[in-house]
Amino acid sequence: MGAGKISAQSAHAAVLGFEQAKKYHKDWVKKWLDDGQAKIVVKVTNIEELNEVKMKAERLGVPVVEVRDMGLTQVDPGTLTCIGLGPAPSEIIDMVTANLKLL
Amino acid sequence: MGAGKISAQSAHAAVLGFEQAKKYHKDWVKKWLDDGQAKIVVKVTNIEELNEVKMKAERLGVPVVEVRDMGLTQVDPGTLTCIGLGPAPSEIIDMVTANLKLL
Repeated sequence: MGAGKISAQSAHAAVLGFEQAKKYHKDWVKKWLDDGQAKIVVKVTNIEELNEVKMKAERLGVPVVEVRDMGLTQVDPGTLTCIGLGPAPSEIIDMVTANLKLL
Repeated sequence: MGAGKISAQSAHAAVLGFEQAKKYHKDWVKKWLDDGQAKIVVKVTNIEELNEVKMKAERLGVPVVEVRDMGLTQVDPGTLTCIGLGPAPSEIIDMVTANLKLL
Protein backbone atom coordinates (compact mmCIF):
# COMPACT_ATOMS: atom_id res chain seq x y z
CA MET A 1 0.00 0.00 0.00
CA GLY A 2 1.14 3.54 -0.70
CA ALA A 3 1.40 6.26 1.96
CA GLY A 4 -2.04 7.68 1.14
CA LYS A 5 -3.69 4.29 1.39
CA ILE A 6 -1.93 3.55 4.68
CA SER A 7 -3.01 6.95 6.01
CA ALA A 8 -6.63 6.28 5.11
CA GLN A 9 -6.54 2.87 6.83
CA SER A 10 -5.09 4.48 9.96
CA ALA A 11 -7.79 7.13 9.87
CA HIS A 12 -10.46 4.42 9.60
CA ALA A 13 -8.98 2.66 12.63
CA ALA A 14 -8.90 5.90 14.61
CA VAL A 15 -12.53 6.79 14.03
CA LEU A 16 -13.78 3.22 14.53
CA GLY A 17 -11.70 2.78 17.68
CA PHE A 18 -12.78 6.11 19.10
CA GLU A 19 -16.45 5.28 18.52
CA GLN A 20 -16.16 1.80 20.02
CA ALA A 21 -14.19 2.90 23.06
CA LYS A 22 -16.79 5.58 23.82
CA LYS A 23 -19.29 2.80 24.47
CA TYR A 24 -17.25 0.81 26.97
CA HIS A 25 -14.42 3.01 28.23
CA LYS A 26 -15.74 6.55 28.59
CA ASP A 27 -13.09 7.32 31.23
CA TRP A 28 -10.20 6.22 29.00
CA VAL A 29 -11.62 8.22 26.09
CA LYS A 30 -12.03 11.34 28.21
CA LYS A 31 -8.45 11.17 29.46
CA TRP A 32 -7.17 10.52 25.93
CA LEU A 33 -9.05 13.58 24.63
CA ASP A 34 -7.84 15.74 27.53
CA ASP A 35 -4.24 14.64 26.94
CA GLY A 36 -4.21 15.57 23.26
CA GLN A 37 -5.42 12.38 21.54
CA ALA A 38 -2.01 10.76 21.14
CA LYS A 39 -1.82 8.36 18.21
CA ILE A 40 1.10 6.12 17.37
CA VAL A 41 1.35 4.03 14.22
CA VAL A 42 3.39 0.83 14.48
CA LYS A 43 3.90 -2.02 12.06
CA VAL A 44 3.91 -5.80 12.00
CA THR A 45 5.60 -8.05 9.49
CA ASN A 46 2.75 -10.47 8.74
CA ILE A 47 -0.84 -11.39 9.53
CA GLU A 48 0.15 -13.89 12.24
CA GLU A 49 1.90 -11.14 14.15
CA LEU A 50 -1.13 -8.89 13.71
CA ASN A 51 -3.38 -11.58 15.14
CA GLU A 52 -1.04 -12.07 18.10
CA VAL A 53 -1.16 -8.34 18.85
CA LYS A 54 -4.93 -8.41 18.59
CA MET A 55 -5.30 -11.35 21.01
CA LYS A 56 -2.88 -9.78 23.48
CA ALA A 57 -4.86 -6.52 23.40
CA GLU A 58 -8.16 -8.31 23.90
CA ARG A 59 -6.81 -10.26 26.87
CA LEU A 60 -5.82 -6.95 28.49
CA GLY A 61 -9.22 -5.38 27.81
CA VAL A 62 -7.90 -2.89 25.28
CA PRO A 63 -10.56 -1.91 22.70
CA VAL A 64 -9.67 -3.42 19.32
CA VAL A 65 -11.14 -2.55 15.93
CA GLU A 66 -10.39 -4.20 12.61
CA VAL A 67 -10.12 -2.31 9.34
CA ARG A 68 -10.98 -4.32 6.23
CA ASP A 69 -10.54 -2.79 2.82
CA MET A 70 -13.19 -2.84 0.11
CA GLY A 71 -10.41 -3.84 -2.23
CA LEU A 72 -11.26 -1.45 -5.03
CA THR A 73 -7.69 -0.33 -5.55
CA GLN A 74 -4.51 -1.71 -4.03
CA VAL A 75 -5.53 -4.86 -2.09
CA ASP A 76 -7.96 -7.79 -2.38
CA PRO A 77 -11.58 -7.25 -1.17
CA GLY A 78 -11.94 -7.84 2.58
CA THR A 79 -8.22 -7.67 3.29
CA LEU A 80 -7.47 -6.89 6.94
CA THR A 81 -5.25 -3.84 6.50
CA CYS A 82 -4.77 -2.74 10.11
CA ILE A 83 -6.20 -2.81 13.59
CA GLY A 84 -6.84 0.04 15.97
CA LEU A 85 -6.00 -0.32 19.67
CA GLY A 86 -7.39 1.95 22.37
CA PRO A 87 -7.84 4.66 23.42
CA ALA A 88 -6.43 3.14 26.59
CA PRO A 89 -3.93 4.17 29.29
CA SER A 90 -0.42 4.22 27.83
CA GLU A 91 0.92 1.75 30.39
CA ILE A 92 -1.60 -0.82 29.13
CA ILE A 93 -1.07 -0.02 25.42
CA ASP A 94 2.67 -0.35 25.99
CA MET A 95 2.19 -3.91 27.23
CA VAL A 96 0.83 -4.74 23.78
CA THR A 97 2.86 -2.61 21.39
CA ALA A 98 6.10 -1.53 23.08
CA ASN A 99 8.12 -4.14 21.17
CA LEU A 100 6.72 -3.16 17.75
CA LYS A 101 8.60 -0.83 15.40
CA LEU A 102 7.22 2.58 14.48
CA LEU A 103 5.96 2.73 10.90
CA MET B 1 7.43 13.25 7.58
CA GLY B 2 7.63 9.47 7.39
CA ALA B 3 4.66 7.24 6.55
CA GLY B 4 3.84 6.57 10.22
CA LYS B 5 3.83 10.26 11.05
CA ILE B 6 1.66 11.08 8.05
CA SER B 7 -0.73 8.29 9.05
CA ALA B 8 -1.04 9.66 12.57
CA GLN B 9 -1.75 13.18 11.26
CA SER B 10 -4.46 11.80 8.97
CA ALA B 11 -5.96 9.89 11.88
CA HIS B 12 -6.00 13.09 13.96
CA ALA B 13 -7.79 14.91 11.15
CA ALA B 14 -10.34 12.10 10.79
CA VAL B 15 -11.30 12.03 14.48
CA LEU B 16 -11.34 15.82 14.83
CA GLY B 17 -13.35 16.27 11.63
CA PHE B 18 -15.82 13.56 12.59
CA GLU B 19 -16.38 15.16 16.00
CA GLN B 20 -16.80 18.65 14.59
CA ALA B 21 -19.13 17.62 11.78
CA LYS B 22 -21.38 15.82 14.27
CA LYS B 23 -22.16 19.18 15.82
CA TYR B 24 -23.21 20.99 12.67
CA HIS B 25 -23.90 18.42 9.96
CA LYS B 26 -25.55 15.41 11.59
CA ASP B 27 -27.19 14.47 8.26
CA TRP B 28 -23.89 14.47 6.37
CA VAL B 29 -22.25 12.42 9.11
CA LYS B 30 -25.06 9.87 9.14
CA LYS B 31 -24.89 9.38 5.38
CA TRP B 32 -21.09 9.11 5.52
CA LEU B 33 -21.31 6.41 8.22
CA ASP B 34 -24.04 4.55 6.31
CA ASP B 35 -21.98 4.64 3.13
CA GLY B 36 -18.84 3.13 4.71
CA GLN B 37 -16.94 6.19 5.97
CA ALA B 38 -15.00 6.86 2.77
CA LYS B 39 -11.70 8.64 3.37
CA ILE B 40 -9.37 9.94 0.71
CA VAL B 41 -5.93 11.37 1.38
CA VAL B 42 -4.67 13.99 -1.07
CA LYS B 43 -1.61 16.18 -1.04
CA VAL B 44 -0.65 19.79 -1.63
CA THR B 45 2.76 21.13 -2.55
CA ASN B 46 3.01 23.99 -0.05
CA ILE B 47 1.26 25.88 2.75
CA GLU B 48 -0.22 28.48 0.37
CA GLU B 49 -2.01 25.74 -1.53
CA LEU B 50 -3.22 24.23 1.76
CA ASN B 51 -4.66 27.60 2.81
CA GLU B 52 -6.40 27.98 -0.56
CA VAL B 53 -8.01 24.56 -0.15
CA LYS B 54 -9.10 25.50 3.35
CA MET B 55 -10.71 28.79 2.27
CA LYS B 56 -12.46 27.11 -0.64
CA ALA B 57 -13.88 24.46 1.69
CA GLU B 58 -15.05 27.05 4.19
CA ARG B 59 -16.80 29.06 1.49
CA LEU B 60 -18.72 25.93 0.48
CA GLY B 61 -19.68 25.14 4.08
CA VAL B 62 -17.52 22.02 4.29
CA PRO B 63 -16.36 21.30 7.87
CA VAL B 64 -12.63 21.98 8.15
CA VAL B 65 -10.27 20.97 10.95
CA GLU B 66 -6.61 21.82 11.33
CA VAL B 67 -4.01 19.42 12.68
CA ARG B 68 -1.03 21.04 14.36
CA ASP B 69 1.85 18.93 15.55
CA MET B 70 3.40 19.17 18.99
CA GLY B 71 6.74 19.08 17.25
CA LEU B 72 8.38 16.55 19.52
CA THR B 73 9.84 14.52 16.68
CA GLN B 74 9.91 15.33 12.98
CA VAL B 75 8.56 18.90 12.63
CA ASP B 76 8.68 22.25 14.46
CA PRO B 77 6.18 22.79 17.34
CA GLY B 78 2.81 24.05 16.08
CA THR B 79 3.42 23.10 12.48
CA LEU B 80 0.20 22.77 10.49
CA THR B 81 0.64 19.23 9.14
CA CYS B 82 -2.72 18.65 7.47
CA ILE B 83 -6.36 19.63 7.37
CA GLY B 84 -9.42 17.44 7.46
CA LEU B 85 -12.40 18.19 5.19
CA GLY B 86 -15.87 16.81 5.76
CA PRO B 87 -17.64 14.48 6.18
CA ALA B 88 -19.65 16.12 3.41
CA PRO B 89 -21.45 14.97 0.25
CA SER B 90 -18.90 13.82 -2.35
CA GLU B 91 -20.14 16.29 -4.96
CA ILE B 92 -19.27 19.14 -2.59
CA ILE B 93 -15.93 17.65 -1.48
CA ASP B 94 -15.05 17.15 -5.16
CA MET B 95 -15.49 20.88 -5.77
CA VAL B 96 -12.63 21.43 -3.31
CA THR B 97 -10.29 18.52 -3.86
CA ALA B 98 -10.92 16.99 -7.30
CA ASN B 99 -7.86 18.67 -8.78
CA LEU B 100 -5.51 17.52 -6.01
CA LYS B 101 -3.29 14.47 -6.43
CA LEU B 102 -3.76 11.38 -4.25
CA LEU B 103 -0.99 10.98 -1.69
